[in-house]
Amino acid sequence: MLATAITKLLNIDYPIIQGGMAWVARAGLAAAVSQAGGLGVIGAGNMPAAELREEVLRAKGLTDRPLGVNVMLMSPHAEAVLQTVVDLGVPVVTTGAGNPGPYVQTLKQHGVKLLPVVSSVALGKRLARLGADALIAEGWEAGGHIGDISTLALVPQLVDAVEIPVIAAGGIADARGVVAALALGAAGVQMGTRFICSSECTVHEAYKQAVVRAADRDAVVTGYTTGHPVRSLRNRFTRQLGELEAGGASLKALSEFGAGRLAQAARDGDITYGSVMAGQSAGLVRRIMPVQEIIEEIITGVRSLTRHLEGQLCQN
Amino acid sequence: MLATAITKLLNIDYPIIQGGMAWVARAGLAAAVSQAGGLGVIGAGNMPAAELREEVLRAKGLTDRPLGVNVMLMSPHAEAVLQTVVDLGVPVVTTGAGNPGPYVQTLKQHGVKLLPVVSSVALGKRLARLGADALIAEGWEAGGHIGDISTLALVPQLVDAVEIPVIAAGGIADARGVVAALALGAAGVQMGTRFICSSECTVHEAYKQAVVRAADRDAVVTGYTTGHPVRSLRNRFTRQLGELEAGGASLKALSEFGAGRLAQAARDGDITYGSVMAGQSAGLVRRIMPVQEIIEEIITGVRSLTRHLEGQLCQN
Repeated sequence: MLATAITKLLNIDYPIIQGGMAWVARAGLAAAVSQAGGLGVIGAGNMPAAELREEVLRAKGLTDRPLGVNVMLMSPHAEAVLQTVVDLGVPVVTTGAGNPGPYVQTLKQHGVKLLPVVSSVALGKRLARLGADALIAEGWEAGGHIGDISTLALVPQLVDAVEIPVIAAGGIADARGVVAALALGAAGVQMGTRFICSSECTVHEAYKQAVVRAADRDAVVTGYTTGHPVRSLRNRFTRQLGELEAGGASLKALSEFGAGRLAQAARDGDITYGSVMAGQSAGLVRRIMPVQEIIEEIITGVRSLTRHLEGQLCQN
Repeated sequence: MLATAITKLLNIDYPIIQGGMAWVARAGLAAAVSQAGGLGVIGAGNMPAAELREEVLRAKGLTDRPLGVNVMLMSPHAEAVLQTVVDLGVPVVTTGAGNPGPYVQTLKQHGVKLLPVVSSVALGKRLARLGADALIAEGWEAGGHIGDISTLALVPQLVDAVEIPVIAAGGIADARGVVAALALGAAGVQMGTRFICSSECTVHEAYKQAVVRAADRDAVVTGYTTGHPVRSLRNRFTRQLGELEAGGASLKALSEFGAGRLAQAARDGDITYGSVMAGQSAGLVRRIMPVQEIIEEIITGVRSLTRHLEGQLCQN
């Protein structure tokens, strides 16, 4: 156990939430994270409700610990997916890419905890007022769709602005990042990139190896000109997209050029022309490990690092 | 005392370095920070050597504790400024905007500690090999000229890559940020934005108030298209510059448009058309305080926060 407001809220052992990455976070990964004491989260992405239903049932077959589902609110299936979540008694929903406001009452009625991902203080305050149970404060250094404030700057400002627990996301991949997040006032962390490189993650092996090989400056941003920036590993796709943007391509042309690229990388293993979404913590991820070892390594590290800091800083 | 590798290296009480901000960090601020137990740093910016000499002598009249000078290596006066630093026995130099390689031997011969500001692992490794005594790892969320990796992602990757101490900079303004930095493996922090809002800082009052008023999303980046991005508070200047960039203005036009804007804000108090450089930690800075109170607040906070974390995380 490592108790915080988040472990109590979600009834889990460790305040580690696995990012609900579309095309990447499937039942096997989510179940392994929950089984190891964190919160595993299935990424619904653009899945139809029937497919999400199968994933949830498969995960429930692998663990009886609490699970979550990430609902991408811009998906055409969002409402049906949320109904499935409620029907199957999934206890936690994380949301991104939209406003979860319309679903708050239904989720509350069924006792589902709502943890929206937010990237600014203003949005966090609004969703706290709407009834969110906790907020996932995601910094610019995260993978996938990103906001414009770094985790280090965002977390303490959000902690000061709301009464509910805040979870830090973006740039965290090891015990050092977890202790840093707790020091900033977070009650837990969400990690995505680190869990891509787990044995249980079913993403294509080439994708995992690309993350392992990545150095500090390899997780770059495209799409600033579209207003929907995305972080992924530098490759021919990001270079071509960057050239299109610099050349003033229309939103429609950029959107068409990027369509299907995440699946191309995650499912098919095309790490040259696919979108290998990953955060800047990729440079900290050096090998593929079983989920339980990742979590044990982090929790052991959190304890020894915290004792070390206390010993170093409070002796005199 | 709060001992780390940096307090030992620099012979200071607390591992807090004040950013050597051009036009902002003058003798009075630097002396106050050193007198309070941190390392005060005079920002030489584009000063001629004679002006820097006066600033150093003025600071030395205010404190007998160690002081530093930040040398902007692209300044036409950089070499003469470094000679002045050596002549006056200033014990610490921080550098930015260039390669300090040519000056390493002279500084070493005179026992001056060299702390380059770096924004990537590759540059940090190169400067460590060249003989830097420590590295200031500055994240994208910092104010002024910035790199492209967040502090949370950069610091642990740099700590793993070099043997010399690493100082975290960017996004840090209070005790939470300091403990987070130490958890990431840093041996200290550099803070700029927080010290802008000190009684001793001689920047125009309107500049200080703009930082105090700033919220989380107000410190924005301009200049991505030039390859030399700069973070400053959103105002008419940043909007006009952004429009010029979006319209494909030439480097020369952008450079001319931006010339003199920092002085316009810092010295003249024009926070509408001047460049109000500040980091994303501006949202954490809520009032103007004397330097000694800032440092005391942080050190007291670091101790209590560290004890709190140890109590919370290591009890079971």
